[in-house]
Amino acid sequence: MLLYDFELAPNPRRVRMFLAEKGIEMPRVQVNLRQGEQFHAQFMRDNPAMIVPALSLDDGTLLTETMAICRYLEALHPTPSLFGVDAKTQALVEMWSRRAEFEGFMAVAEALRNSVERFKDRALPGPRNYAQIPALVERGKARAAGFFEDLEAGLAGKTWLAGEAFSVADITAFVVVEFAGWVEVQPTPAQTNIARWRAAIAARPSASA
Amino acid sequence: MLLYDFELAPNPRRVRMFLAEKGIEMPRVQVNLRQGEQFHAQFMRDNPAMIVPALSLDDGTLLTETMAICRYLEALHPTPSLFGVDAKTQALVEMWSRRAEFEGFMAVAEALRNSVERFKDRALPGPRNYAQIPALVERGKARAAGFFEDLEAGLAGKTWLAGEAFSVADITAFVVVEFAGWVEVQPTPAQTNIARWRAAIAARPSASA
Repeated sequence: MLLYDFELAPNPRRVRMFLAEKGIEMPRVQVNLRQGEQFHAQFMRDNPAMIVPALSLDDGTLLTETMAICRYLEALHPTPSLFGVDAKTQALVEMWSRRAEFEGFMAVAEALRNSVERFKDRALPGPRNYAQIPALVERGKARAAGFFEDLEAGLAGKTWLAGEAFSVADITAFVVVEFAGWVEVQPTPAQTNIARWRAAIAARPSASA
Repeated sequence: MLLYDFELAPNPRRVRMFLAEKGIEMPRVQVNLRQGEQFHAQFMRDNPAMIVPALSLDDGTLLTETMAICRYLEALHPTPSLFGVDAKTQALVEMWSRRAEFEGFMAVAEALRNSVERFKDRALPGPRNYAQIPALVERGKARAAGFFEDLEAGLAGKTWLAGEAFSVADITAFVVVEFAGWVEVQPTPAQTNIARWRAAIAARPSASA
């Protein structure tokens, strides 16, 4: 296996945190997105979606999508479980993972990619070019703030998003909160559940993976 | 269990197809989104996210997110598996599910919700109002067409998206192709893999669920 990674990007960080929580080590290659290495001919041939993270399996299969990579690793290394062990917890992990991605991660990405010069005509990742849409900048920030309201409510009375066990949903939501700093949106001081939960994750060794 | 459903909407259809493939029956209540029933006080109290599908569990937990509902049902009724039985298939199901959702479903939804009068100030689902952004209409259609290119390539030499077994990824991608008709984007005649695969799914009893 070989993991295509980029230290500075938020989605590869989710995979690195997942690996660290599992205690898995694997070879990684850095694809420097800021220097356009995703456009190199060899990378485009190996990875037509042109995105990181991507996991190349020994049979030649290329897995893209952070969660597909994490599920593959969960199946090979089931302990400690990061996707939940019973039906209800598995469903709550999935629900919170999706909220964190659709309402949190994509909102921040929208605000970032539609405002920054280096994403001109690259408002979406992948092999096709899309122009920036300035109206998405403020909308993305507003959606991210809305996600923090839901996250604060979702953490009330719970240690972790899906209940008693730390999960991949916590990893994703934590990376969203960190990523939101890039567009200067952060939880409010009144959102104390987020603050408590965020500090607990920041103290885990995986947070610096 | 009680399923909040709406016969005309694409995400609830994914859950109904999933239930039909599993042979599961459960009580359902219709929430007529076209008549604004998601804004009724009781529904908003039961379902603060104001979205369907949603599955209410007997302990009072409300599961939102189509895939969270499907995973819950998969855990309770593992046969036939619709999420894959081995690590690699599970990962491919996840990968294709996400591509179908992020690049297909969301693109079509973007084109629809930003163009139609009844979604004025409701460009995104959920409890918060967002104004329509006209530039997203053409971009959404272009992205949907791009997804069909990837879908065509992904189906080459394969019966189903994740390989030999029909999965929830096929359900989602099939509903995306149908949903895209709402914004008048459809696969091209040259996309024969999609045509063959789409006809095979349309012939399954679950397609009319």
